[in-house]
Amino acid sequence: MKLISKSKTFGGVIESYSHPSTACNCEMRFSIYLPQLTSKSNVPTLYWLSGLTCTDQNFMTKSGAQRIAAELGIAIVAPDTSPRGCNIEGEDDHWDFGTGAGFYVDATQQPWAKNYNMYSYISKELPALIESQFPVNNIKGISGHSMGGHGALTIAFRNPKSYASVSAFSPICAPSKVPWGIKAFSKYLGDEKKDWEQYDAHILAKNADANSIEILVDQGDEDEFLENQLKPRSLVDSCHESGNKIELRLQPGYDHSYYFIATFIEDH
Amino acid sequence: MKLISKSKTFGGVIESYSHPSTACNCEMRFSIYLPQLTSKSNVPTLYWLSGLTCTDQNFMTKSGAQRIAAELGIAIVAPDTSPRGCNIEGEDDHWDFGTGAGFYVDATQQPWAKNYNMYSYISKELPALIESQFPVNNIKGISGHSMGGHGALTIAFRNPKSYASVSAFSPICAPSKVPWGIKAFSKYLGDEKKDWEQYDAHILAKNADANSIEILVDQGDEDEFLENQLKPRSLVDSCHESGNKIELRLQPGYDHSYYFIATFIEDH
Repeated sequence: MKLISKSKTFGGVIESYSHPSTACNCEMRFSIYLPQLTSKSNVPTLYWLSGLTCTDQNFMTKSGAQRIAAELGIAIVAPDTSPRGCNIEGEDDHWDFGTGAGFYVDATQQPWAKNYNMYSYISKELPALIESQFPVNNIKGISGHSMGGHGALTIAFRNPKSYASVSAFSPICAPSKVPWGIKAFSKYLGDEKKDWEQYDAHILAKNADANSIEILVDQGDEDEFLENQLKPRSLVDSCHESGNKIELRLQPGYDHSYYFIATFIEDH
Repeated sequence: MKLISKSKTFGGVIESYSHPSTACNCEMRFSIYLPQLTSKSNVPTLYWLSGLTCTDQNFMTKSGAQRIAAELGIAIVAPDTSPRGCNIEGEDDHWDFGTGAGFYVDATQQPWAKNYNMYSYISKELPALIESQFPVNNIKGISGHSMGGHGALTIAFRNPKSYASVSAFSPICAPSKVPWGIKAFSKYLGDEKKDWEQYDAHILAKNADANSIEILVDQGDEDEFLENQLKPRSLVDSCHESGNKIELRLQPGYDHSYYFIATFIEDH
């Protein structure tokens, strides 16, 4: 791992690193917040998955979550949202696909399959690295925003025993049915829609074992993407169908921004 | 005024505006946070002056101050750090002069004198506009960071009765003696050093009436600019000389970033 930057905040420290990733076959970046350690005991970790166009920095600079993590004694890990600079043709052509838009899947289609394996990176490689390199234990929570909310939910549904808490802000709940998801899944996963189901929260929710997961979702009711891209009701219906607890809080007047996230992050 | 953006946060609202400025002879921008108004009574306002390269956005997105303003029932106004787009030759050539670096002075030198009048803009024009357009009263606090800390201190020393609270993070305390200040003052104010004194906090402090002001300064002791650009000890010495209260808190391990500001903003 290579340390890129380091700043003290709320008694703890925010560090950014790059490291060679096996899953993504390239150098990947993440930021970590470590609270002030008052004893030798290790702390739990919240994994935060960011949305389209974000890097490992957005959550750390804008959410205000470190104040709460410092109080509670938890670490926060914010990975990047995709591989970068892999010299794949077209990787920088779209703000909602390629760089900054890995969609937390393992790509099966060329030219993406070699690098765009964010599902394996986030669910396996990164936690193993974090747990081996930092004073954290193996208790994990997962949350995220928009595309990252989709990532948090799908990774949690597929690995429910790995996460002590699961939540999302403004998640893409039915990617197979919305423009952002259809565009990304077609290119990363191909045209066979059956292959998309393992990355679609509202389908995974339908097929989940009863009482296997408990989810908090915050969603602004003035979010411009609510109806066309996010569809949280589809997730609620699926959770109810399979017998899993979900609380969807429609927050009146809030939009899709980090100002919304900062307001409610303490509850996550 | 023209509304540029609006987001709900912590029950209140952040709005960004542009408006034609008389002092600066151009369109200027500011952001304002208004807490949820629970009665008809107007609220006090904290003016936050940002540092080099910042816009009206940095403090609003990174400081986490809205959470506290919402609790206390105060508004926050974050102006831009200079005129922009005035088509002055060389305005965008330096990160520490011109655009993003107005230094809160009224320029006397060409070609800056027509537009770069941030002292008058911040101390007179903007508060008058804010008090006429928003549900705020005339109780004001002033604070800022780095170049903006310099701005907050110098404006407060020259108008001590206008501000109910005065504070700064990592302020440039003796601009006449440090590279950032000398570069900016030479170009905005000319080579006559006597003309610089009205914009130098450590000189204004020396000449201030006793007990006319009370200042809180937070300064990270691992701030890379501490010795060469900021010199807070010179301000403390001057305040003691004139008989004014100042608390300088050297915060161990903290740097010059917004991560430092976010940690201690509640005290300001």
